[in-house]
Amino acid sequence: MLPPLAHRTSQVRGSAIRDLLTLTARDDVISLAGGLPAPELMPHRRIRDAASRAFDAAGVLQYSETSGVRRLRAVIAERETRRTGSPVDVASVVVTHGSQQALSLLGTVLIDPGDVVIVDAPAYTGALQVFAAAGAEIRAVPVDANGTDIDALEALLGTGVRPRIVHTVSNFHNPRGVTLSAGRRQGLADLADRYGFWMIEDDPYGEIWFDAPPPEPIHSDRVVRLGSASKILAPTLRVGWMTAPYPVAAAVELFKQGADLCGSSLTQTVAADLLDDTEWLDEHLGGLRRAYRSRCRALTGALTSAFGSSVEFDDPTGGMFVWAAFTDGTDTSAMLSTATDHGVAYVPGAAFGSEPAFGHAARLCFATVDESVAVEAVDRLYRAHQADVSASR
Amino acid sequence: MLPPLAHRTSQVRGSAIRDLLTLTARDDVISLAGGLPAPELMPHRRIRDAASRAFDAAGVLQYSETSGVRRLRAVIAERETRRTGSPVDVASVVVTHGSQQALSLLGTVLIDPGDVVIVDAPAYTGALQVFAAAGAEIRAVPVDANGTDIDALEALLGTGVRPRIVHTVSNFHNPRGVTLSAGRRQGLADLADRYGFWMIEDDPYGEIWFDAPPPEPIHSDRVVRLGSASKILAPTLRVGWMTAPYPVAAAVELFKQGADLCGSSLTQTVAADLLDDTEWLDEHLGGLRRAYRSRCRALTGALTSAFGSSVEFDDPTGGMFVWAAFTDGTDTSAMLSTATDHGVAYVPGAAFGSEPAFGHAARLCFATVDESVAVEAVDRLYRAHQADVSASR
Repeated sequence: MLPPLAHRTSQVRGSAIRDLLTLTARDDVISLAGGLPAPELMPHRRIRDAASRAFDAAGVLQYSETSGVRRLRAVIAERETRRTGSPVDVASVVVTHGSQQALSLLGTVLIDPGDVVIVDAPAYTGALQVFAAAGAEIRAVPVDANGTDIDALEALLGTGVRPRIVHTVSNFHNPRGVTLSAGRRQGLADLADRYGFWMIEDDPYGEIWFDAPPPEPIHSDRVVRLGSASKILAPTLRVGWMTAPYPVAAAVELFKQGADLCGSSLTQTVAADLLDDTEWLDEHLGGLRRAYRSRCRALTGALTSAFGSSVEFDDPTGGMFVWAAFTDGTDTSAMLSTATDHGVAYVPGAAFGSEPAFGHAARLCFATVDESVAVEAVDRLYRAHQADVSASR
Repeated sequence: MLPPLAHRTSQVRGSAIRDLLTLTARDDVISLAGGLPAPELMPHRRIRDAASRAFDAAGVLQYSETSGVRRLRAVIAERETRRTGSPVDVASVVVTHGSQQALSLLGTVLIDPGDVVIVDAPAYTGALQVFAAAGAEIRAVPVDANGTDIDALEALLGTGVRPRIVHTVSNFHNPRGVTLSAGRRQGLADLADRYGFWMIEDDPYGEIWFDAPPPEPIHSDRVVRLGSASKILAPTLRVGWMTAPYPVAAAVELFKQGADLCGSSLTQTVAADLLDDTEWLDEHLGGLRRAYRSRCRALTGALTSAFGSSVEFDDPTGGMFVWAAFTDGTDTSAMLSTATDHGVAYVPGAAFGSEPAFGHAARLCFATVDESVAVEAVDRLYRAHQADVSASR
């Protein structure tokens, strides 16, 4: 008999989405289920050229500093300074192995077992996994068309709940597709001051806006902002970052030493090269925004044409996701196998939280389907839904 | 006032070695303090070429599987099968972000707070950091010329101590420079059977043998073996791996999802390419072994010439480190500033554990100093020691 594992291994579930992706990864299935950026829109040649140049840099093969390659941290500090409108010091920047590692390390340095963490309903599943692994008591507040419902949060705080952290995806929410309004950002910062909690503004999608940039980031000295190169450049770089008040950044660096010593000099040098080339980056992002907007509109247009009022959604203004809610009682978990039989896959809303209404919703990712495929996907979804309705009569 | 951090942030110290490296990173100081492989011996052109080819592979820019790129896992399984002499299944291989991440994830999935973990004295500091962060009660057993003292371990177990894990660097120990004998490997496996603990065989240096390979890995179904591409190829790949009994591998994969989703397809594809090219790799390793052996002998020869019987060490038969113990009462922590004033740096033994004898020892890394520099380094160390002795009279 083998020795036992730690108790927490029996308390944490794997990502239902990852399991689902395995089931739906069939060539004849159009997947709206993944949360993957479009590979054909990634700057393949530019990354290859930058990698080739990176090999000329001294130290590119060696271990690097735990908090990240210096030039990349400087580029991120500059970008965040422009983005937030106030000076961001390099010392507050930590480069992480994707922004998921930033979340995970924040789970370690901010949460004691039993602490309350407030997430969105529906929530980013990677955040749920981290907070559960950290032993947090997880509470949720609803998200509507304007992002996290701050009145609901205030009401929850009014009942005596005292969170250590409030986590939200502020821009083009995963999975909800919406953006936190400017007024609510201020409201959230005010509540953080009043009740003394940390905010994690998780922002991997903020630069993928369609017609206009989202509101300014949350202004507060209690906010930790997370960003990522995965959605705008390529996931293979494994470059994410956090900007955080100095004590948090220092603690994260300390625990990153034990977690993995440091990131890759090679991929961090490539990321610095691309993020620092603002002229090229603006053009690249312009192309990405146009492509995702067009794919999104193809998908939402087809949804409206096919389903009319039996599916509701808030029109995304950026990002990668549509949150489609069936108004006719459709159980999206139950319908999934019919859908894959009809050649289309999505993530059932139940994967993102336990709210009963989520059982009628589906997260649809438009990033990887071009316009004609989006239309075909909705057509298959419509036929699956028809079959599902017939079967349940 | 900012909200608080988690309690554990006040319990874990940073790596004293990392802090030291910052202090000693002066151009006029020869550093024997780092644990870094020699950059000029890394296969720069071969890695660059492999990276260039990797960009032709489908999916190289995208997210990859959490447990690692399939081809790399297969290559590692083949290599471990050859190395251990018994079949290693791909399902038991998890690729990690350097072997430090493997250790960190094992801390998460194997240790409940308060569990006993037994380490070597002296110990690898990165392991101490992980086990402290996991809330383990850390005990230590001495290492002598034949590795971990299994009689001492048995005696400790005999007092009723029941560890969850026994961790050792089996080959060319960091910092002790010695190798666990074949008999002791068997003895350790027998104790694991009798007392029901996991063994972590941490083996980043095993392929850097000078004249003959080390004994076969520990044979047991309770052993988790860790390996790394950092010392034989390049740290920038951030490729380490573990082979583990299936329940451990599965739990590690689960928690790696939350830790960072996945590794880099690009650097994992490069690692697979190089590790799979056995003809090239054998030649590359042959060159690395000859170079490190020659550097090691230059250093140990100079130590003997300069210090005679006032410094003792076990001649390394591989790896990167000499553990030099002063027999004249020298306090290596106290002498360090004199040493850097004389233009040489090392890691004081006290960084590796609290045993009083370690206060007279120093870890000397010969990997990054060629023969003439090794001789010069020892000359500087000798003069620093003379100055230290004079000052303390």
